[in-house]
Amino acid sequence: MNASPTALPGTAVDYVHGYSARESRRLGDQADTLAALLHEGIAYPVGSRVLEVGCGVGAQTVHLAAASPGALITAIDRSPDSLARARARLAAQAPAAEIAWQCADLTQLPFPDGEFDHLFVCFVLEHLADPAGALAGLRRVLRPGGTITVIEGDHGSAFFHPDSADARAVIDCQVRLQRAAGGNALLGRELEPLLARAGYADAVVHPRTVYADRTRPGLVDGFTRNTFIAMVESVREEALAAGASTPSRWARGIADLHRTAAEGGTFHYTFFRAVAVNPPDTP
Amino acid sequence: MNASPTALPGTAVDYVHGYSARESRRLGDQADTLAALLHEGIAYPVGSRVLEVGCGVGAQTVHLAAASPGALITAIDRSPDSLARARARLAAQAPAAEIAWQCADLTQLPFPDGEFDHLFVCFVLEHLADPAGALAGLRRVLRPGGTITVIEGDHGSAFFHPDSADARAVIDCQVRLQRAAGGNALLGRELEPLLARAGYADAVVHPRTVYADRTRPGLVDGFTRNTFIAMVESVREEALAAGASTPSRWARGIADLHRTAAEGGTFHYTFFRAVAVNPPDTP
Repeated sequence: MNASPTALPGTAVDYVHGYSARESRRLGDQADTLAALLHEGIAYPVGSRVLEVGCGVGAQTVHLAAASPGALITAIDRSPDSLARARARLAAQAPAAEIAWQCADLTQLPFPDGEFDHLFVCFVLEHLADPAGALAGLRRVLRPGGTITVIEGDHGSAFFHPDSADARAVIDCQVRLQRAAGGNALLGRELEPLLARAGYADAVVHPRTVYADRTRPGLVDGFTRNTFIAMVESVREEALAAGASTPSRWARGIADLHRTAAEGGTFHYTFFRAVAVNPPDTP
Repeated sequence: MNASPTALPGTAVDYVHGYSARESRRLGDQADTLAALLHEGIAYPVGSRVLEVGCGVGAQTVHLAAASPGALITAIDRSPDSLARARARLAAQAPAAEIAWQCADLTQLPFPDGEFDHLFVCFVLEHLADPAGALAGLRRVLRPGGTITVIEGDHGSAFFHPDSADARAVIDCQVRLQRAAGGNALLGRELEPLLARAGYADAVVHPRTVYADRTRPGLVDGFTRNTFIAMVESVREEALAAGASTPSRWARGIADLHRTAAEGGTFHYTFFRAVAVNPPDTP
């Protein structure tokens, strides 16, 4: 379903969005526009040991480092290419940040038990075939009493004006492609039960809602057009190859999505942020 | 489509939810649970003249009065029965509040031009065949520079875990019944363009998101069960009479909605709150 091979074995599946330079820029735009929304209030104490799991191209790492300058941040990803991009991004955007980079799969973590005080996992679970299993595995490297922060989107939260069946259909293509690749683009709504099933305690989930209309041109451009529509557009070839759409239906759907970013249009999307604790009385 | 006759002529359509005592209690539960979310930050100055348009059974009036004790609140509704219930509610819950009650249709307002400093319109536009026309008409009684606050839900914002096509189908019944009655249960997303079309300026729209999981039992009970599911359940007879569902499909859909309120379930819904100004340079 996806041209990019899985970088390392494990439950992780092919990355549905691919690894192109354009994709890397999209993820950067997305992180910058959404940073305030997603990272608000996240600041790890000086000296605390933080593991970012699946840092990708470093889009979130930049903001983690900026908000927690005294924390000892380790960032892992299973793709050597993504890690190289992440290093380059940090060197350019946050040269003072000292990140320990490591190429590793989250299902085979090369760290001792209880090595970290905090885990940060953003836009990763949606790509995994067994997110609850992955979360449970991550607990091993989190000290008892330490926290995990998980951020995910949910494409089922997308709605807009003018409404359009064609626009909903192209979004659904993305959902189906991600499902066919073993992932779940509707994962955000499941964070609380997933964390509970994985053995974490005291989960608190907050929806982080993006709403864009013409009075918020930065969000219309940064989120509706350059993040969401760009993400949907990036799977066009796969959607057509899979027979999930036709060129004309696809074009109508994308055109209708762009109408939601024009005068008189509105666009709504919800991310979910969860924080939970590794119970002190468990291994 | 709805057993209740339209109380007064105008563009207003039959009230899809009906006027039963159970419905009155549902609206009260809804307002109490959601009051903090919907009314947060709304406090009208002492002496300011406020018109609540379509106060219904007074579910919002209670909170308006509590948050703005010095404001001069007038509350209108086209249904004498609803007004009587609203009076009784205020007498019981906010006996000190002095509300000027008046039976009137919002399309035929018995007030001079520019009579009010602020308009408050909550869960009303969704029932109107011409919401932009209604908003434009309301401007006449709002002084130049005065504000209008509009609050609406949007059933297209509802999503949940476990996901269920049957559950989505019963929600869609409500959407279709409301549309058949001339209303729009997906109106929340349109507030900004509607206000712009009606001639208001400086509209600012904020999504107000309700998210419920087992860690928030008050919301699971107060919102998911007693507000949202109760609202959907209230249209069962009409849905079956209209051929929009069958008894067995309906039962499956409602059962699946209840699963979202059980252990491991989650429920998400977004209301929209807009504030806009009557431009000073227009009549």
